[in-house]
Amino acid sequence: MPAYKAPLREIKFVMDELLDMPAHYASIPAYADVATPDMVDAIINEGAKFCENVLSPLNRVGDIEGCTRHEDGSVTTPTGFKEAYKQFVEGGWPSLAHEVDHGGQGLPESLGIVMSEMVGSSNWSWGMYPGLSHGAMNTIELHGTDEQKHIYLSKLVSGEWTGTMCLTESHCGSDLGILKTKAEPNADGSYAITGSKIFISAGEHDMADNIVHIVLARLPGAPEGTKGISLFIVPKFLPNEDGTPGERNSLICGSIEHKMGIHGNATCVMNFDGAKGWLIGPENKGLNCMFTFMNTARIGTALQGSTAAEASYQGALAYAKDRLAMRSLTGPKAPEKAADPIIVHPDVRRMLLTQKAFAEGGRALVYLTAQQNDIVKKSEDEEARKAADEMLGFLTPIAKAFLTEVGYEATNLGVQVFGGHGFIAEWGMEQLVRDTKIACIYEGTTGIQALDLLGRKVLMTQGASLRNFTKLVHKFCQAEEANAELAHLVKPLAELNKEWGDLTMKIGMAAMKNREEVGSASVDYLMYSGYVTLAYLWAQMAKVAQEALANGTSEEDYYKAKLATAKFYFARVLPRTKAHAASMLAGADTVMDLEEAHFAF
Amino acid sequence: MPAYKAPLREIKFVMDELLDMPAHYASIPAYADVATPDMVDAIINEGAKFCENVLSPLNRVGDIEGCTRHEDGSVTTPTGFKEAYKQFVEGGWPSLAHEVDHGGQGLPESLGIVMSEMVGSSNWSWGMYPGLSHGAMNTIELHGTDEQKHIYLSKLVSGEWTGTMCLTESHCGSDLGILKTKAEPNADGSYAITGSKIFISAGEHDMADNIVHIVLARLPGAPEGTKGISLFIVPKFLPNEDGTPGERNSLICGSIEHKMGIHGNATCVMNFDGAKGWLIGPENKGLNCMFTFMNTARIGTALQGSTAAEASYQGALAYAKDRLAMRSLTGPKAPEKAADPIIVHPDVRRMLLTQKAFAEGGRALVYLTAQQNDIVKKSEDEEARKAADEMLGFLTPIAKAFLTEVGYEATNLGVQVFGGHGFIAEWGMEQLVRDTKIACIYEGTTGIQALDLLGRKVLMTQGASLRNFTKLVHKFCQAEEANAELAHLVKPLAELNKEWGDLTMKIGMAAMKNREEVGSASVDYLMYSGYVTLAYLWAQMAKVAQEALANGTSEEDYYKAKLATAKFYFARVLPRTKAHAASMLAGADTVMDLEEAHFAF
Repeated sequence: MPAYKAPLREIKFVMDELLDMPAHYASIPAYADVATPDMVDAIINEGAKFCENVLSPLNRVGDIEGCTRHEDGSVTTPTGFKEAYKQFVEGGWPSLAHEVDHGGQGLPESLGIVMSEMVGSSNWSWGMYPGLSHGAMNTIELHGTDEQKHIYLSKLVSGEWTGTMCLTESHCGSDLGILKTKAEPNADGSYAITGSKIFISAGEHDMADNIVHIVLARLPGAPEGTKGISLFIVPKFLPNEDGTPGERNSLICGSIEHKMGIHGNATCVMNFDGAKGWLIGPENKGLNCMFTFMNTARIGTALQGSTAAEASYQGALAYAKDRLAMRSLTGPKAPEKAADPIIVHPDVRRMLLTQKAFAEGGRALVYLTAQQNDIVKKSEDEEARKAADEMLGFLTPIAKAFLTEVGYEATNLGVQVFGGHGFIAEWGMEQLVRDTKIACIYEGTTGIQALDLLGRKVLMTQGASLRNFTKLVHKFCQAEEANAELAHLVKPLAELNKEWGDLTMKIGMAAMKNREEVGSASVDYLMYSGYVTLAYLWAQMAKVAQEALANGTSEEDYYKAKLATAKFYFARVLPRTKAHAASMLAGADTVMDLEEAHFAF
Repeated sequence: MPAYKAPLREIKFVMDELLDMPAHYASIPAYADVATPDMVDAIINEGAKFCENVLSPLNRVGDIEGCTRHEDGSVTTPTGFKEAYKQFVEGGWPSLAHEVDHGGQGLPESLGIVMSEMVGSSNWSWGMYPGLSHGAMNTIELHGTDEQKHIYLSKLVSGEWTGTMCLTESHCGSDLGILKTKAEPNADGSYAITGSKIFISAGEHDMADNIVHIVLARLPGAPEGTKGISLFIVPKFLPNEDGTPGERNSLICGSIEHKMGIHGNATCVMNFDGAKGWLIGPENKGLNCMFTFMNTARIGTALQGSTAAEASYQGALAYAKDRLAMRSLTGPKAPEKAADPIIVHPDVRRMLLTQKAFAEGGRALVYLTAQQNDIVKKSEDEEARKAADEMLGFLTPIAKAFLTEVGYEATNLGVQVFGGHGFIAEWGMEQLVRDTKIACIYEGTTGIQALDLLGRKVLMTQGASLRNFTKLVHKFCQAEEANAELAHLVKPLAELNKEWGDLTMKIGMAAMKNREEVGSASVDYLMYSGYVTLAYLWAQMAKVAQEALANGTSEEDYYKAKLATAKFYFARVLPRTKAHAASMLAGADTVMDLEEAHFAF
């Protein structure tokens, strides 16, 4: 298993040099006094130690042991998981970015994302236990009554209890409109929840005293479809008056799924058999309530892509420096050894640099969205909030789908760098592949994100959200127009930025005649958007590096590496936009012509 | 688990209509009398039944149970594997395409490939047990003494014994030149083999009476590197005079690897402790001997890509017709149901059609190479043999690397079509992903194939092998120049065919200045070559379909589906060549500039 080393220099680069988080925090009164540079540094350094020393060694344990469900429905997590969680709670990590009102530390979510990144790279499966709590906390914080907040929020914030989101049923995931779980009113104002939910991450486990399920269900006589879904709080143990967990609720983990990966996380079938629950938010508005924090949940999943790329890159890089095979085509590089380390070979370097470009570019994109989220939540400038909200909405499907797709690619390259050993479990490289595939699926598949981007975010705003983003890119390109050293980045970026608008226009026109054009083009459009967005970030990172070198620095090699990676990304990865551009314009008939009955004979 | 249904219509299409195998068999005296159309049909139909009814149901069993190694080094294969193998042997399947001299049926290898395809789609792990014997049989057939043939070949051909290829050691796979296993002469003319081999597929199991290991080792004082490697036959049981297995040889399975996939196959560490072996072929020429059948071994692996695409496509298609989610953007297609089957959605169709294009295109490419192999082995026309040998050499790295890469992509699309359920083991879709990843690695990684193609096959022949192939493509395009109905295929094919040569020239020129250009461009070059090769085959398949429709047919829908798939492939998949073309020309500095020490800080 590759031992995780928190990439602190890289984190600092994006935080301080690319996004100027210190100024950002200082500009938001809610953060100015708490998220001071010293505090931020201390938290990241402490977090790094926890992830390197506690979580990383448990990653393979989780994969091997998985979770065990006992006959009574209880679930034991892998060896060490519970103890690590205890340390995590004692360290105050769950409360980092939550409201002071409920026991939180009131630090920015963007700082929480840095910790989530380190947790995710070192042990994604473990990170899902505290990670899933965020959905429950967000739901209660935004839509709960004061009483609900009082009972549940402080326990979730402290990490004493964890939470889940119970959405999916066996017959529906992407299409929640057809879910069947029922909620029938009890005399005491509560509801009796009955139904079966599947794919419930962290649905049952032995880490916390109580588990707070947020369940989507239908009230009697509710309208059909998405407009008849309500949200309920359904705790595993009904809270006593004094806040302690009381009577066991009638819900149970029916089984644990056998999955491709994330074995360390208990993915449960949760059976609710008249379980006691309380309505949260307005009747029949459950999906709307959930949309209010969809962006943050999806950014949390986007992170899985870039964290997996980072973890796989770390493993592959170490191996490529160590493993000997053949000689460089330009003559031996390690003549004293039986063969050269494989990092001398151009194709191995191509794979490593692809991983590196996705890991570092992905970090930049995730942090950028997290910065926008800070502004949405806490800025006192309404215009800024509005602009950030729009950018966040626009970037979220891109970050979620694109980063998980390329993150998955990066994990596969990691296996490939290892050759046959990559296929062997002990090395841990194949686990990263297996763990990461789900990121392209949960929280809305790549296809769903693509429809969200092209249909909802771009076309339904008549392109406004895209234009506002491309304006930023344009501004950057204009400012650097005369920068000869970066011309190999800025020029193609400006061209792609223009083409992005042109392609959107063409698809929009075609879609007016035939609605299928949207679905036909959507995934190519999303991937195209992802490559261009990452190009924008890489160009900006190159600019930062160029300035640092011009100003004189003791870290010349570091900044030169940034320039080399930017160059690689533009020359070797970005040309994929050509394929996506051609494919998205090919027309819906390319996929719709074939009749359903004629797909096979 | 998707139940496998042999795609007999598709197999027939490629055999009879695209490649005219009946005429091909009739033209080769060795096959004319045995591979008659009736016989070929009967064999394929019988084989299909065996694969559908016996092997397919065991595929998931193999994944779940894996193989068990006992303390004495013996290995138990998954439930049912041994019985299936017995049936396979009783049915005469191992001997299908082997020489009559040694008990074979003397049928063409291209027919053997059809059976291998069906075996592979239904249960790849199981298929590796008889599959690995081919390497041993080929070695002995081509390089063994009469005595060696007498002792081993008929047992292997009948399937009573199986074989392995013991090449890899823990420190070397791609670079066999640094292997360490020793062979020391015994007084009786045999050798004592000592060393440890890893990743030995089917290295130990309970299916056959004996296992014949072909082992690469070094003689005392052998030259360093690849020129000091010799081949040895090292049987598990030393054969008695009467041909029965006798004394146990001193070799043992030390452990079974824990792998990402192909759990049903025993991937063994094999420890040879002075094991008795016999030299096969000339001293120090072991690698050369192995190269004589490298092409067929690699085609066997190429098959894993297209068979996995087929299996995953079958599963995904059935699910897409059954699973309900949301309504078509152009209005309900199944108004009587709660939602439309997901096959109505354009992006689901894009995924299915990508799988279909790779499965059917891959079959065409594999069968084409198998046809060339028939000619190489058995044609009495020397010119034809020479031309076929060259084409086979040229197409082999393309088929091996390209088909396994796109086959792997197809299995991932299969998971994606299933959404969350794709990640769940019971559906069998994720197993296909796990089983297929190794295909991009073993028998030479994608990177190794790419160097073989660009370095050895193309540049070292001054482009001759490429030119001879592009001439065929050119001839086809010229013949169809006036064919308006196929212009959307023929025109881009002709352009790409020209570009292929231009790109090769440019890389060749660049490589004269800097050898790293070859390694830098190689994988992009290989993938580019794969997409164009498949485009050529899809254009030919479209031509066959067009003719059938023009001539009148009772299978109109079938041929129209071929045209629709060809159109899809050209419009939606083939544009990827643009990305690869740009990337391969970007220059070696894009990957070589970054110093080894600066990949991370």
